[in-house]
Amino acid sequence: MPEDLEVLAIGDRCPSTLDEVLRGRRSIRRYAPRELPDKLVLEILDLARHAPCSMGAQPCCFVVIRTPAALERLAAIKNAFCAADKREAYPAGFLAEAPVVVVVCVERDRAHGRGHENGILAAAHLLLAAHARGLGGTYLTAYQPDDPGLEREIRLLLRLPPDIDPVVVVPLGFPAERPAPKRLRPLSSLIHNEIFGEPAQE
Amino acid sequence: MPEDLEVLAIGDRCPSTLDEVLRGRRSIRRYAPRELPDKLVLEILDLARHAPCSMGAQPCCFVVIRTPAALERLAAIKNAFCAADKREAYPAGFLAEAPVVVVVCVERDRAHGRGHENGILAAAHLLLAAHARGLGGTYLTAYQPDDPGLEREIRLLLRLPPDIDPVVVVPLGFPAERPAPKRLRPLSSLIHNEIFGEPAQE
Repeated sequence: MPEDLEVLAIGDRCPSTLDEVLRGRRSIRRYAPRELPDKLVLEILDLARHAPCSMGAQPCCFVVIRTPAALERLAAIKNAFCAADKREAYPAGFLAEAPVVVVVCVERDRAHGRGHENGILAAAHLLLAAHARGLGGTYLTAYQPDDPGLEREIRLLLRLPPDIDPVVVVPLGFPAERPAPKRLRPLSSLIHNEIFGEPAQE
Repeated sequence: MPEDLEVLAIGDRCPSTLDEVLRGRRSIRRYAPRELPDKLVLEILDLARHAPCSMGAQPCCFVVIRTPAALERLAAIKNAFCAADKREAYPAGFLAEAPVVVVVCVERDRAHGRGHENGILAAAHLLLAAHARGLGGTYLTAYQPDDPGLEREIRLLLRLPPDIDPVVVVPLGFPAERPAPKRLRPLSSLIHNEIFGEPAQE
């Protein structure tokens, strides 16, 4: 049974194997004041488009935001639509300090009724591709199930056509923080054998 | 601008870098009649639990199915709730031939209203970890937005408590197919600069 305590932190070198990338990726919300080259952003988006998608239809597209005014507006939108109890623990102001924010969107007619799923899978790949290049980022949602306001404001900011839905907001930059090791739940408590409640086979 | 035509196929060797894993992963629906060691399944689930999650709460758990009767029942359920137009192109009978199926579930009280998102992110990591070990799998949904029947039947099969929601069904096995190269949409058509419709910076 693998170790349950996660002791890897964001290193100064880039992780090289898939296992290292999966174990080492953490949510990064503070970025060094250092430009993020277009080439790196393109590489990351190139990899993100390889994510699994519904019936091969590839519905994802990416809006890349760099201008300070747009980043500040996006931070204000995310803060305005964050529940009060979450805003204190997870304020969105850091979005304004990111060199780049990618908004993962989906073309509804290509998504086979699974727009969110397609966008989320692409965002997962995007974050891993970024981490493998020594970059940090985090996953923020672009919609709320119970309030259309967040999606509406992002839609206005990005001038999205009616058939394009925003799904995930991913800030990216060179990390300026090193999160403390994360204590993971014991693996054995997460695995069930055939039916829920049956312990995993050892 | 990276190449737009995806020419990598599932090789006979395991991919070693993150980029290779992201580019090389494909949906695999035919499996060799070869046992999948528990150790590999544990390694993969260990990596899946490192996926991003809401507020660090780690809501995901995994039900591992291996018994033929349960796999056949799951295949029948998926076929029964598949839209007729999709069933022909994507029949679910292959689930009964997989050595292992993992159902990614979430504990609702830990998910901060984002159960689907958390489960989908874990499934993305799971599929990549499997591919890096030379295994194949694919992403199938465990719920339908407009019909509670699929989720209900899976819940019954796995005896899920009311606070545990099934999100993704992932069959795993050693690949017995080599999908044809996949033609990807041109990267430049997927990237927008600041607002939708503005071409990417070259």
